[in-house]
Amino acid sequence: MQPKTIDLNCDLGESYGAYTIGLDHAVLPFITSANVACGYHAGDPLVMEATVRACKAAGVHIGAHPGFPDLIGFGRRNLAASPQEVKAYVQYQVGALQSFCKAARVPLCHVKPHGALYNMAAKDIALASAICEAIAEIDGSIILLALSGSKMIEAAQATGLPCAREVFADRAYEEDGSLVARSKPGAMITDEAEAIARVVGMAQNGRVRAVTGKEIPLQPESVCVHGDNSHALAFVQKIRRALEANAIALQAMHV
Amino acid sequence: MQPKTIDLNCDLGESYGAYTIGLDHAVLPFITSANVACGYHAGDPLVMEATVRACKAAGVHIGAHPGFPDLIGFGRRNLAASPQEVKAYVQYQVGALQSFCKAARVPLCHVKPHGALYNMAAKDIALASAICEAIAEIDGSIILLALSGSKMIEAAQATGLPCAREVFADRAYEEDGSLVARSKPGAMITDEAEAIARVVGMAQNGRVRAVTGKEIPLQPESVCVHGDNSHALAFVQKIRRALEANAIALQAMHV
Amino acid sequence: MQPKTIDLNCDLGESYGAYTIGLDHAVLPFITSANVACGYHAGDPLVMEATVRACKAAGVHIGAHPGFPDLIGFGRRNLAASPQEVKAYVQYQVGALQSFCKAARVPLCHVKPHGALYNMAAKDIALASAICEAIAEIDGSIILLALSGSKMIEAAQATGLPCAREVFADRAYEEDGSLVARSKPGAMITDEAEAIARVVGMAQNGRVRAVTGKEIPLQPESVCVHGDNSHALAFVQKIRRALEANAIALQAMHV
Amino acid sequence: MQPKTIDLNCDLGESYGAYTIGLDHAVLPFITSANVACGYHAGDPLVMEATVRACKAAGVHIGAHPGFPDLIGFGRRNLAASPQEVKAYVQYQVGALQSFCKAARVPLCHVKPHGALYNMAAKDIALASAICEAIAEIDGSIILLALSGSKMIEAAQATGLPCAREVFADRAYEEDGSLVARSKPGAMITDEAEAIARVVGMAQNGRVRAVTGKEIPLQPESVCVHGDNSHALAFVQKIRRALEANAIALQAMHV
Repeated sequence: MQPKTIDLNCDLGESYGAYTIGLDHAVLPFITSANVACGYHAGDPLVMEATVRACKAAGVHIGAHPGFPDLIGFGRRNLAASPQEVKAYVQYQVGALQSFCKAARVPLCHVKPHGALYNMAAKDIALASAICEAIAEIDGSIILLALSGSKMIEAAQATGLPCAREVFADRAYEEDGSLVARSKPGAMITDEAEAIARVVGMAQNGRVRAVTGKEIPLQPESVCVHGDNSHALAFVQKIRRALEANAIALQAMHV
Repeated sequence: MQPKTIDLNCDLGESYGAYTIGLDHAVLPFITSANVACGYHAGDPLVMEATVRACKAAGVHIGAHPGFPDLIGFGRRNLAASPQEVKAYVQYQVGALQSFCKAARVPLCHVKPHGALYNMAAKDIALASAICEAIAEIDGSIILLALSGSKMIEAAQATGLPCAREVFADRAYEEDGSLVARSKPGAMITDEAEAIARVVGMAQNGRVRAVTGKEIPLQPESVCVHGDNSHALAFVQKIRRALEANAIALQAMHV
Repeated sequence: MQPKTIDLNCDLGESYGAYTIGLDHAVLPFITSANVACGYHAGDPLVMEATVRACKAAGVHIGAHPGFPDLIGFGRRNLAASPQEVKAYVQYQVGALQSFCKAARVPLCHVKPHGALYNMAAKDIALASAICEAIAEIDGSIILLALSGSKMIEAAQATGLPCAREVFADRAYEEDGSLVARSKPGAMITDEAEAIARVVGMAQNGRVRAVTGKEIPLQPESVCVHGDNSHALAFVQKIRRALEANAIALQAMHV
Repeated sequence: MQPKTIDLNCDLGESYGAYTIGLDHAVLPFITSANVACGYHAGDPLVMEATVRACKAAGVHIGAHPGFPDLIGFGRRNLAASPQEVKAYVQYQVGALQSFCKAARVPLCHVKPHGALYNMAAKDIALASAICEAIAEIDGSIILLALSGSKMIEAAQATGLPCAREVFADRAYEEDGSLVARSKPGAMITDEAEAIARVVGMAQNGRVRAVTGKEIPLQPESVCVHGDNSHALAFVQKIRRALEANAIALQAMHV
């Protein structure tokens, strides 16, 4: 029997110039994939270079984390960019990070869009397709890491781009596998133990209880974790321990 | 006998968003290499994408033209960036352009630093070495295009990076092959016919008359031309015609 | 009897660094108000300084033209900024321009939001109110120049801020005085003579024929004109001549 | 007899978007003047607005802290900007901050150039004069806060602009009142008690011991302190306590 595996991914390299964000070095030992900011919404060339080297040293897989050109808004605000613009922004940022990967002799394994770009493309097939084309034209073996059940997964499959479905430990799901909107009651899983149990369940059985109470299939390849503060860091350690205790191997996404 | 050849290089893709600069399409038929801006001092992802495709269609070799992060100053102002910063800036920008080259299935052939970065690195071996290391770590077969007789050529040779010596038709040279400073009398060759004759002479005999009157050896691989206005455009056509009339083949730089 | 007057406003000072846009000096003799870009979507400090001085010399009233922080998109793309962010962006940009006005000893007379900010605030009362509060807190005698019939006019009146209603010569109107959406047939007035006749009619009688054919009241204080190319420039001259021929005085907005 | 007074100034409002720098709220109770970043090297409109309100609430005088347009370098790298560019940059940034001061109904009292701009203008009379003209054209009663013994003080006096001489507790002085270059031995006063004693001495007697051992006159109007970390914060409290214990009143700069 094939052993169960799952990936833990975390946004890294979000510091910029004199500004430091995130406990990158503290979270690295516990994750398997890093989404590295590429200078548009966060990150700068020196930070990218250092982050790539730190990931390599920790044996963590490296992915690009392209966002909107909105440093002042940290890429979190919807921007009415066209699919053509989004495609060019993604190619620009992925290429920039790829340089540092080449210099460090490590592969760039995946791409995960950031913030508003992630959320918009999850619902907009034109943006999702633009992102997939951008990646496929650079290297068709790069994995798109995207919201399970989203238009991005749909676009990756249509493009023939490998993709990995991402889930969030602290979010509830509708019966169709989409996220419960934050505005709805029950959208957030606030109990830490419950959140961890849900992730373990998804990884083990490929099922989770939807917000309606019905059990639904959900087979995530990656769980999104955070490393911005000590609380988040403690959670990453707990989730990792719980997965290992249930014989689920931590392993980076693979095609 | 080996036929004489020379490359004509021109800065391209300097437009940005709603702002258009340069007669890119008009100059493309006459040049052999394009230095494409990479978004720091000029250029944006859509412009880079379009410029790479236009170069491919015209059979013009593509190079990266990285500059300082100074859009408001067009990269023309000296900035006290450290060698480490410069190295990271170059890797970032070269990688960004390489994405568009990959997507268009054309190689990125060379790198020519822009403006203040070009001028500073011409005289500063630490900056020059940082640029060469940046390129060599990405791909050791990329050619550095740099001022003939400068620290950049010296650094490329020390790094083992292929390089091409660039000359300027409208500039006078000292006996040691360096440019006469703009502040000195005779620094500029203002007569167009003389400028063209000098370029033909360098390409043909590998010699040019220094500002002192003495003949010196100067074997350029590339001549810098401009395409920003109709006057510059006419000059490119004339210089190309003169070279061809003297049996000097126009050919992109090669290792 | 009070003589009829109207203002002709034009966006100016949109150049940036090495990039030049607009025939600013050519259009200045024909307009009465200039909307000066403030460095976020276009314009830079040197351009702002020069534009203010040119307006002063031409006797043209100066207004701020704040936009979204989106130079790469020229402020034309919707950005999901909060009212609080928009308020701060407007105060920042208006203040920056006010410095150059103080230095040149001319008043800053009005504020006209730019591009996507103009369009979003025309329909969103929260953004419109944020803009009006931003201006009123700086100086309650500055005029808001905004789309006739929009939420911005509504917000200005609620805030007690003086405002001027703007019309577009080349756009059709619905019966309620709002612009016909560009996606609808008949949205654009493509016949130049008709466009001019409509502006003259509005200025003279305070009435215009809506897209439905019905005559509606519309009393504009200002007409938006452009100076980006020779065609636009010719149109400004024609519209000005037509207004003067009909005894409508060209005069900047006033409280 | 006139009581002795001195000002304690600190850089504030250096956060940017999602990035937080500095213990602004913790240091506010101990200082008398704040130099507020204006969006070029640090700070953003929301941060500026909040910082101005916090200063007002704490009774701390507000000054503008304009820097080079170099966010990625935090304004710390020399940039070869012309005096004309520097003048325009200063007017832009001072005006932007003035808007938030107007909105909060507090005066903008002073201007202190930041980082590389401060250091370059301290030695370059053309840049120093450009800064003084920029300020004087906006409001001739704004105080320039600048390095004691520098070209900036000289330029302010020539321009007729009020100025305040700044000293650094942790720096040694040459006999002519200029700072000992950081590269020289003895440049830094590393003993905290000695640093405090020197500041008290300057405030009390208008004298300090130069690095040569000779007593020289030095009459500072303001002492630069920092609030970026808990150590810096503790030092501000100590220096304030020492000044008060020696009957030197803490008071913002005044003309």
